[in-house]
Amino acid sequence: MAMVRALVLERQHELALRDIDLPLEVGPGQVRIAIHTVGVCGSDVHYYTHGRIGPFVVNAPMVLGHEAAGTIVALGEGVTHLKVGDRVCMEPGIPDANSRASRLGMYNVDPAVTFWATPPIHGVLTAEVVHPANYTFKLPDNVSFAEGAMVEPFAVGMQAASKARIQPGDIAVVLGAGPIGTMVALAALAGGCARVIVADLAQPKLDIAAQYEGIIPVNIRTEKVADAVARLTDGWGADVVFECSGAPKAWETIMNLPRPGGAIVVVGLPVEPVAIDIAGASVKEVRIENVFRYAHQYDRAIALIASGKVNLKPLISETFAFEDAKTAFDRAVEARPSDVKLQIRVAQ
Amino acid sequence: MAMVRALVLERQHELALRDIDLPLEVGPGQVRIAIHTVGVCGSDVHYYTHGRIGPFVVNAPMVLGHEAAGTIVALGEGVTHLKVGDRVCMEPGIPDANSRASRLGMYNVDPAVTFWATPPIHGVLTAEVVHPANYTFKLPDNVSFAEGAMVEPFAVGMQAASKARIQPGDIAVVLGAGPIGTMVALAALAGGCARVIVADLAQPKLDIAAQYEGIIPVNIRTEKVADAVARLTDGWGADVVFECSGAPKAWETIMNLPRPGGAIVVVGLPVEPVAIDIAGASVKEVRIENVFRYAHQYDRAIALIASGKVNLKPLISETFAFEDAKTAFDRAVEARPSDVKLQIRVAQ
Amino acid sequence: MAMVRALVLERQHELALRDIDLPLEVGPGQVRIAIHTVGVCGSDVHYYTHGRIGPFVVNAPMVLGHEAAGTIVALGEGVTHLKVGDRVCMEPGIPDANSRASRLGMYNVDPAVTFWATPPIHGVLTAEVVHPANYTFKLPDNVSFAEGAMVEPFAVGMQAASKARIQPGDIAVVLGAGPIGTMVALAALAGGCARVIVADLAQPKLDIAAQYEGIIPVNIRTEKVADAVARLTDGWGADVVFECSGAPKAWETIMNLPRPGGAIVVVGLPVEPVAIDIAGASVKEVRIENVFRYAHQYDRAIALIASGKVNLKPLISETFAFEDAKTAFDRAVEARPSDVKLQIRVAQ
Amino acid sequence: MAMVRALVLERQHELALRDIDLPLEVGPGQVRIAIHTVGVCGSDVHYYTHGRIGPFVVNAPMVLGHEAAGTIVALGEGVTHLKVGDRVCMEPGIPDANSRASRLGMYNVDPAVTFWATPPIHGVLTAEVVHPANYTFKLPDNVSFAEGAMVEPFAVGMQAASKARIQPGDIAVVLGAGPIGTMVALAALAGGCARVIVADLAQPKLDIAAQYEGIIPVNIRTEKVADAVARLTDGWGADVVFECSGAPKAWETIMNLPRPGGAIVVVGLPVEPVAIDIAGASVKEVRIENVFRYAHQYDRAIALIASGKVNLKPLISETFAFEDAKTAFDRAVEARPSDVKLQIRVAQ
Repeated sequence: MAMVRALVLERQHELALRDIDLPLEVGPGQVRIAIHTVGVCGSDVHYYTHGRIGPFVVNAPMVLGHEAAGTIVALGEGVTHLKVGDRVCMEPGIPDANSRASRLGMYNVDPAVTFWATPPIHGVLTAEVVHPANYTFKLPDNVSFAEGAMVEPFAVGMQAASKARIQPGDIAVVLGAGPIGTMVALAALAGGCARVIVADLAQPKLDIAAQYEGIIPVNIRTEKVADAVARLTDGWGADVVFECSGAPKAWETIMNLPRPGGAIVVVGLPVEPVAIDIAGASVKEVRIENVFRYAHQYDRAIALIASGKVNLKPLISETFAFEDAKTAFDRAVEARPSDVKLQIRVAQ
Repeated sequence: MAMVRALVLERQHELALRDIDLPLEVGPGQVRIAIHTVGVCGSDVHYYTHGRIGPFVVNAPMVLGHEAAGTIVALGEGVTHLKVGDRVCMEPGIPDANSRASRLGMYNVDPAVTFWATPPIHGVLTAEVVHPANYTFKLPDNVSFAEGAMVEPFAVGMQAASKARIQPGDIAVVLGAGPIGTMVALAALAGGCARVIVADLAQPKLDIAAQYEGIIPVNIRTEKVADAVARLTDGWGADVVFECSGAPKAWETIMNLPRPGGAIVVVGLPVEPVAIDIAGASVKEVRIENVFRYAHQYDRAIALIASGKVNLKPLISETFAFEDAKTAFDRAVEARPSDVKLQIRVAQ
Repeated sequence: MAMVRALVLERQHELALRDIDLPLEVGPGQVRIAIHTVGVCGSDVHYYTHGRIGPFVVNAPMVLGHEAAGTIVALGEGVTHLKVGDRVCMEPGIPDANSRASRLGMYNVDPAVTFWATPPIHGVLTAEVVHPANYTFKLPDNVSFAEGAMVEPFAVGMQAASKARIQPGDIAVVLGAGPIGTMVALAALAGGCARVIVADLAQPKLDIAAQYEGIIPVNIRTEKVADAVARLTDGWGADVVFECSGAPKAWETIMNLPRPGGAIVVVGLPVEPVAIDIAGASVKEVRIENVFRYAHQYDRAIALIASGKVNLKPLISETFAFEDAKTAFDRAVEARPSDVKLQIRVAQ
Repeated sequence: MAMVRALVLERQHELALRDIDLPLEVGPGQVRIAIHTVGVCGSDVHYYTHGRIGPFVVNAPMVLGHEAAGTIVALGEGVTHLKVGDRVCMEPGIPDANSRASRLGMYNVDPAVTFWATPPIHGVLTAEVVHPANYTFKLPDNVSFAEGAMVEPFAVGMQAASKARIQPGDIAVVLGAGPIGTMVALAALAGGCARVIVADLAQPKLDIAAQYEGIIPVNIRTEKVADAVARLTDGWGADVVFECSGAPKAWETIMNLPRPGGAIVVVGLPVEPVAIDIAGASVKEVRIENVFRYAHQYDRAIALIASGKVNLKPLISETFAFEDAKTAFDRAVEARPSDVKLQIRVAQ
């Protein structure tokens, strides 16, 4: 254990940038990483404002932050694919490699997974962290720390795009232009879609998404998504619909969007059960896929960023110094519609 | 056109066995079939008792019946794979071969499909019918007319089993032990499942299903399905859950049943939208498939019956003479829990 | 029938631009198209130089050309999704919509398909042609006739990319940088690959491919493909290998390229059976997919071109006037390594 | 380490039933198993007769045997799903749970896997063995030790059936009626096939396979497999062809067997590269899958045996006492065509 400076959520509504005792010994198969940049995620903010997410309750001081990039400073025994000085980003979830889900290749649905900044597990808004080398990924020279810290939310988009089983040239719809919806839209385009309709009612969010070639913004205050889909697909319907709004209202008319034999990929999570039009899904034999975090997406996400096919930089709205970390969180609570991602630069 | 005897639904609640004018000319690519046996389906009964199913309303006299087998009596031009005298069964839906859905191989979701005994299309409870040869299937010598008339409902089970993408040795659950649930259970077993838990609250239905090796009946009055699944799968969950009850209540707890990465195949159609636990589906990344009738299943269904892997005979509860067709329908309205399938023998 | 000017292959080695009698009546479901641009394909050239391709022998004068775009000039009965004046491109193969393969959605493997410029079927290097509307596709305003005539070879690349079942962020290899190899590489990138290694021994071909972001050219005179793959994938192997050279030599070492669980998609056709290292394929459980033309790719290909994700213009090496059509073929026979696609502009 | 009696291959051609020093300490996550029954596999016999298989050479005395069942006698730390006294069977391959292949769920293609009775790893023809609990599977009460020792070869059949992606009601062909071909045929039937044609030239092998309902034996001395397929499928072709003979000759005509869009699953391994008709594969867009051992098949295999869908007992040709283990191997070398599986009962 070692005393290190960290952004600690003491309890609901109370953040402190203070020293805390964290374990920094590097065991076999692990690496120690000096944190460079950490993104502020909606879940971090939600713990700050509500003190809990569903069954996960903040009962003790917890370091926040799970979207992180940094530099390897120490290697545990048996680690061969990384070396000290490598610039890296990290998956925040650590599964049990021997669980049944992990052995089947689905470590994201392993119930035993621990996840940074999910009570009682500390996050990484701190100087250094120890992590399994298998969930630590080298950044190519042309991928910055800031981009590296964006891999985590982008991996959610990648998981959604994978589940969709996109055929090259598909036409997709993304409902909801928040950070995750935008990430999903970019992953869908990089993953083979010809065009992606992105629908929201906040024009500033749509304007950000509309910067990208291939994205067609639809403001649902002024146009029905179904009309936009019909126009683009000659009445046939979208190959894939990504539900990223989490709004029960989105489900009321969603079955109008997919083509016969199309798919709905659910990324946004409504808190309560949602009324779904089974009869409408049946007549088109719609396939509905559900997404939980991601598995095996980091290397693919990094490859797409490095190759230039995916550009996440325009989504970084502002970067804060570590000493202004609380300011960053208060700005995130404020929720400007034009903010996509706020980041905190931990390294000096 | 020709005057032929048929079971005509004159209007809601009124059946008549009388002569009616039906088209019997055989065009290119068509065959004429002397009907031998016709099964009574829940939809036939529903038109009788309610005069409509959703948007399909009986506004004019309509011949009932769509689960049929018979004998080829005439061939249209260009038909080469069938000959006069062949014993056959027929798909009741006729798609447009040039529609976009049909060309993609999904003719069942072609919106232009016409379907026997779905207003205003006549059914086949009559002496003869003309049908496209492509949707007419030869019965092997060891498959009876009665079994041939069971292929239609069994094809729904086959479609569900196909959508499930069963891996050999899967453990499945079927919610609802009505005729369709039972068909689905048999298709799932024939399609690779090691065992199928069938759940219902009507013990006579469960007793019928329990005749088949591999089916484990669960009476939900006395046992939770989730407990049965946990016991059979050592707490892991079922690979596939087939929802065949159509009951909104089934959806309240259904997310407890599949394993992480498992599937729910929806066969039963609730009339109204149903509250679905998206969060529960997400955490396991459940795949939800919807089934609408069937496509490309008749030849496969017949092959399984002919090979002895599927035995539908125990599901034929009683056979009525054509002159007793109304009696058959009144018995179907009565709905004895031990009745699975009633059939009408049209041929003398 | 009508006498129209066409490029006729009279017999092996003998081309004539002359009048020939062709059927131009428009039947139900058909359209008549004024041809604008036609690409010269290797198969056209092969009939010219060899008089046959495998079992297909030129026994009578035959119009060449099957990569075509033009303008609708007449509509047959029942055609609703096109109108006179629409700019279009056409699939050259006409399947039987009622064949078993077509009904299953695989019309490309329908043995009954007829195909332009495949003896004894005439091609389209002529003023007008009649074609089924279902295999005629509207070009968006921002897609030129020249690009429209490129959709046919690009559709082969699309079919290969579809068969590969690309996961977003895959790393692929294309063996062979000829026209088809290049099309496959572009389809693979558009279809989700992060990077594509393209290997050949002709540097001019590699230089053309290397214009595209994401393509990594490898000249096999100076570097082993396996070394390039190992470097790019950290020794793991490529997710997909597209064999587009048709060279038996490529098969000698191909099993070194895919990762465990990876795929080989075979596009290039060696004339004779090829020695394949089954043991090498087994130890990695390689999946080998075979591609025959394409099915359901035209609309997707056009969508990708229209959205800007795929740019085929740099691949059009030179365009010839119709009266210089023979010159175009002689240039194609000459086979300059820097030529990708030669086109003939039929319209004045 | 402990001195225990074992069947030791001293060197090529020399077997000894003698004491040998083996490690029997039980570490965390491991169990110790008292061996009850071990099957004699072709690979065991091949090491005996040839002293090597490909790159694996017997350079030191090695215990033979890898198809085993037994009883748990000790549990390592952290093992919860098994208990002392459980009757079990074991996967003979031990992968590295942290390798890239294992994490992706494909531990069978992990190059680091160690495998019983593959030099220099000892096999299990001995009294006791220590093994990871994760690769040790409880046998239900109605599955005997003898059946438990058959799970290993049957798992190969299961892997082949999984790779085939069988649709319920498929028609399959198995080339080669040896032990593995027969296992594959049974797995294909249990996995959803309606019928399986099994082809060989040894009539005794065909007679054994023909005991099972759904298997159609074809003696290739007297009938072409393609003719049998055409007769059974009305000229369309088989949905899946399993190549289990390993004979290069089988590849000469194999492309006549699958239907358009069908699959070939390769289980038999020819030593040298084999001439494959790529053009024939292309025109039907045949998918070729390769199988290497198995992953995630043991629990499914056991479920099918326990449910009664798969009966492996008729394939156990003879059982030898442990003291007659050499006799068993000499009988296996003799290779009677009617022998499917010989087993050695290690337990007293």
